[in-house]
Amino acid sequence: MARPSFDITLPDESLREALQARIDDLTKPRGSLGRLEELAMQAGLIQHTLTPALHHPQNIIFAADHGIVSEGVTVAPREVTFQQVCHFTHPNGTGGINFLCRQHGFELKVVDAGVDADLPRDRGIIDRKIARGTDNFLHGPAMSPEQFDRCLATGAEIVRMCAAEGSNVLSFGEMGIGNTSASSIWMSRFTGTPIEDCVGAGSGLSPEGVRHKKEVLARSVEGYRGDGSPEDWMRWFGGFEMVMAVGAMLQAAEMHIIILVDGFIMGACMLGAAQMYPAVKAYAVFGHCGDEAGHRRMLDALGARPLLHLGLRLGEGTGALCAYPILDSAVRMINEMDRFSEASITKYF
Amino acid sequence: MARPSFDITLPDESLREALQARIDDLTKPRGSLGRLEELAMQAGLIQHTLTPALHHPQNIIFAADHGIVSEGVTVAPREVTFQQVCHFTHPNGTGGINFLCRQHGFELKVVDAGVDADLPRDRGIIDRKIARGTDNFLHGPAMSPEQFDRCLATGAEIVRMCAAEGSNVLSFGEMGIGNTSASSIWMSRFTGTPIEDCVGAGSGLSPEGVRHKKEVLARSVEGYRGDGSPEDWMRWFGGFEMVMAVGAMLQAAEMHIIILVDGFIMGACMLGAAQMYPAVKAYAVFGHCGDEAGHRRMLDALGARPLLHLGLRLGEGTGALCAYPILDSAVRMINEMDRFSEASITKYF
Repeated sequence: MARPSFDITLPDESLREALQARIDDLTKPRGSLGRLEELAMQAGLIQHTLTPALHHPQNIIFAADHGIVSEGVTVAPREVTFQQVCHFTHPNGTGGINFLCRQHGFELKVVDAGVDADLPRDRGIIDRKIARGTDNFLHGPAMSPEQFDRCLATGAEIVRMCAAEGSNVLSFGEMGIGNTSASSIWMSRFTGTPIEDCVGAGSGLSPEGVRHKKEVLARSVEGYRGDGSPEDWMRWFGGFEMVMAVGAMLQAAEMHIIILVDGFIMGACMLGAAQMYPAVKAYAVFGHCGDEAGHRRMLDALGARPLLHLGLRLGEGTGALCAYPILDSAVRMINEMDRFSEASITKYF
Repeated sequence: MARPSFDITLPDESLREALQARIDDLTKPRGSLGRLEELAMQAGLIQHTLTPALHHPQNIIFAADHGIVSEGVTVAPREVTFQQVCHFTHPNGTGGINFLCRQHGFELKVVDAGVDADLPRDRGIIDRKIARGTDNFLHGPAMSPEQFDRCLATGAEIVRMCAAEGSNVLSFGEMGIGNTSASSIWMSRFTGTPIEDCVGAGSGLSPEGVRHKKEVLARSVEGYRGDGSPEDWMRWFGGFEMVMAVGAMLQAAEMHIIILVDGFIMGACMLGAAQMYPAVKAYAVFGHCGDEAGHRRMLDALGARPLLHLGLRLGEGTGALCAYPILDSAVRMINEMDRFSEASITKYF
């Protein structure tokens, strides 16, 4: 298959003045609803309307395994990817992401991008398995160019499916033991940050474990023999689930769907997506910044101001979902508050 | 009437270990849900249960006018207090706080603590008017000791009413042109911060306006001739709506009701409440920190870590309500996630 391409432009700015006028006409001191006002502006521009609305929010989790895990760079064993996918697709819905989806009215879709296991068939898991995990990028590329292209196309396909279901706001999350390693390498390349400043404790590595992880990743990068393009870098150090998320973000931006960006790994995917199409960032709402220094640096590189700082480090979309009500508030604000031009309130500022 | 007294103790700590064990048994890496885990602990301790729950949340707005406004310390004219109270009790519900109450399932109660106007009788406004605004504290105490005691008792009465309606989580807000002046003076006294560092631009003062406000407040403090107790300080530089909020917070703490603290003014009220009963702080969840340096300093003095930084400066409870879903998530987490001891997931950390 050919590499998918996307038609992504910055949102049309022609409504900016009218949106600002409408926001300033709401019965409150100008600017007094802070970030809600900024989010209302962003949603209005993306949707090209003075009355933005959020429909059928969904959280898409892409899941896959990583060959690099055999180098001992993670606390959790490989099978936890499989276990967690089973867990949050269980009918009881008792995983970390499940209560947040219920709370905020999100549908949850789980995509098998490349889990190293036969997943149960009765859970509604969307089977798009590329392979049973990537190859170990310490010794060569994680995936082939064909696999990379298929990941991009599949992520895009899932977003078109969501759009057909009526969604205009999507959160992306991931499950993949080892994917902080891939993300650190993407971040290092795409932000110009030394690899050692991109590596954190992940899900609880010891200081010795962190040293080992840095060393493995540095050697992996030294071994790179590709063409140096951002796409090739993502291919070599991928994550099937990560490249699918990149494709999903790009398709979402093309379709003017608001993208809720979760934590470190989805931040790395947005960095990768923006390497290919810089305008994708205009469609992103950054939900959460974790406690690790690398995450803050990544968000700075993206020019992102995350909505929340709650010390979350679970992934799966949890940080994005916790931020959703703030976006919802912004949209309600512009639609539900009345205006000075229509109300009997002194406009005193 | 006698000054009301309250029976406020720190939450019983005997469940702390059991709560921590339960939180650590949830199927996630330990600590990976950050602030949600801390809030679940706090809610569990306050409610003395391993299964905390939130019932019938309400946002109480206390409204009153301030004599100091005649010194030209505000941008908005005095009548805006009256207008805004009419506005957010209008059946159309199109004020800033209204859409947030709808979004988050809060009942809104509005208490006339001392608005300088005859309020409409068909809006469900709770009439507890102490007087038509406080006296001008540049020339003497804002209220009498009897008025102060009535305010405390009234705030407590409103909370008992909410508790009888089944509420165990309450947000307090205010409407009162001029109340940032009173709050700055409270903050200065109760945190030992020079008055000039407690004064900000309020709802949009010019630099010249800020200078004038600082000068008026400094002269007001110089004129103080009371007994120096925290209660007397609050009385002299009160706000009826602020002292009612203090009484409300104290009653809430006594009844183990979770207190959602909004912005600068409610922070000042929590400072005042904590002067009387330091344990009240254990019942507080701080919703929001605004952009003004004074607010950050105030929260530091309270040892508070606010959940949100959204640049809000509307008051009315908006910052507290925006933070509510995070508290809700915390409670859902502890109740809805399953446990390693019951699930087939490798506990790998």
